[in-house]
Amino acid sequence: MRETYHEQLQQLVDDLVAMSHFVGIAISRATESLLEADLNLAEQVIAADDELNSIDHQLEERCLDISALQQPVATDLRMVMSALRMSSSLERMGDLAAHVAKQTRLRYPAHAIPDELRDTFAEMGRAASAVAEKTGEVIATRDLELAGEIERHDDTMDRLHRELFSIVLAPTWSHGVEAAIDVTLLSRYYERFADHAVNVTRQVVHVTTGEPYSSSPSQL
Amino acid sequence: MRETYHEQLQQLVDDLVAMSHFVGIAISRATESLLEADLNLAEQVIAADDELNSIDHQLEERCLDISALQQPVATDLRMVMSALRMSSSLERMGDLAAHVAKQTRLRYPAHAIPDELRDTFAEMGRAASAVAEKTGEVIATRDLELAGEIERHDDTMDRLHRELFSIVLAPTWSHGVEAAIDVTLLSRYYERFADHAVNVTRQVVHVTTGEPYSSSPSQL
Repeated sequence: MRETYHEQLQQLVDDLVAMSHFVGIAISRATESLLEADLNLAEQVIAADDELNSIDHQLEERCLDISALQQPVATDLRMVMSALRMSSSLERMGDLAAHVAKQTRLRYPAHAIPDELRDTFAEMGRAASAVAEKTGEVIATRDLELAGEIERHDDTMDRLHRELFSIVLAPTWSHGVEAAIDVTLLSRYYERFADHAVNVTRQVVHVTTGEPYSSSPSQL
Repeated sequence: MRETYHEQLQQLVDDLVAMSHFVGIAISRATESLLEADLNLAEQVIAADDELNSIDHQLEERCLDISALQQPVATDLRMVMSALRMSSSLERMGDLAAHVAKQTRLRYPAHAIPDELRDTFAEMGRAASAVAEKTGEVIATRDLELAGEIERHDDTMDRLHRELFSIVLAPTWSHGVEAAIDVTLLSRYYERFADHAVNVTRQVVHVTTGEPYSSSPSQL
């Protein structure tokens, strides 16, 4: 019985790691769809999001089963409770990747972003994939130094987000209001994606150290 | 002991209702600060958000205590688990109200929105306050018909959100790119606020009926 219990807890961790990996691939593909105006890839990302929602449901049921049948206490209980919140954040990261892909679809066959911003969005995409992968590692290993690295990626994302604002607001912006809005919303999806990753890793810190959890405030 | 247990569960419900009320006031004041360019009111909303974060922490600790000491099962356990997710959504609604207030502060002493959009934002503010108040009622009463009303308010919000898009994208838009971006982001904060309320009420439906939970996808 004890072994089953530990297996169940490990399964929770494995599911969260799998979700992190999933959203890392989703944001990476969504970014490629955005940069290449690849409708097919965008549709794949959008369709895959349902699967992530199912994993989130299953995880919630697993948390309920573990709590009801095993009655965990102390750190284990905190882990089960935090898993629910982490799963919500990861599910939301999947939504945001799907939002990026939907923007590709909305503007297809045109590109959703002006050519001069390709590099910035490519960099945002790389930062987002990196935070998702590292989030999985932090969940698996509880390595708190790695959690610090995610906060630094998040700082990079905030910087890129502000850079994009200053580009679309500059007098040299020649792409009009619609493109400015597209860029602003897309940039915000990436910024929120990284914020949610920070929230997940802070939950891990919270479970591991017992320090109070504080959520990452999103940038304006 | 039994009475204490029920009191504890009721306290969870009471906290969630109080949080709903809190965010209803926050979004109502944030909207007023936006419409009147009232810096003082904006600062109050921003400062009050910390209090909401504290309630969220306390609620999490309460959920842990109830689970550890009382070992709830069945619907009670589902309620405790869902309370954590509802609290996260309500905390996020508070963040969004603070975002609106921060936009007021950023543009002060100017108005953050053009005069011609005052009515639309006033209507968004009323819809947002209404969903927050009704969310509290749904949590308190588990009245599923009322949950349906919240979905309808959310539809109103989505309509207003789309209306604002068409206004800022019309050739008649004369306020430039910065104002268009401000309006887009503000509109998105309101739209997300209502989405989170829908998510909270769907959690209540989930706890009450056992039907699978599905999160509300945000509008692009």
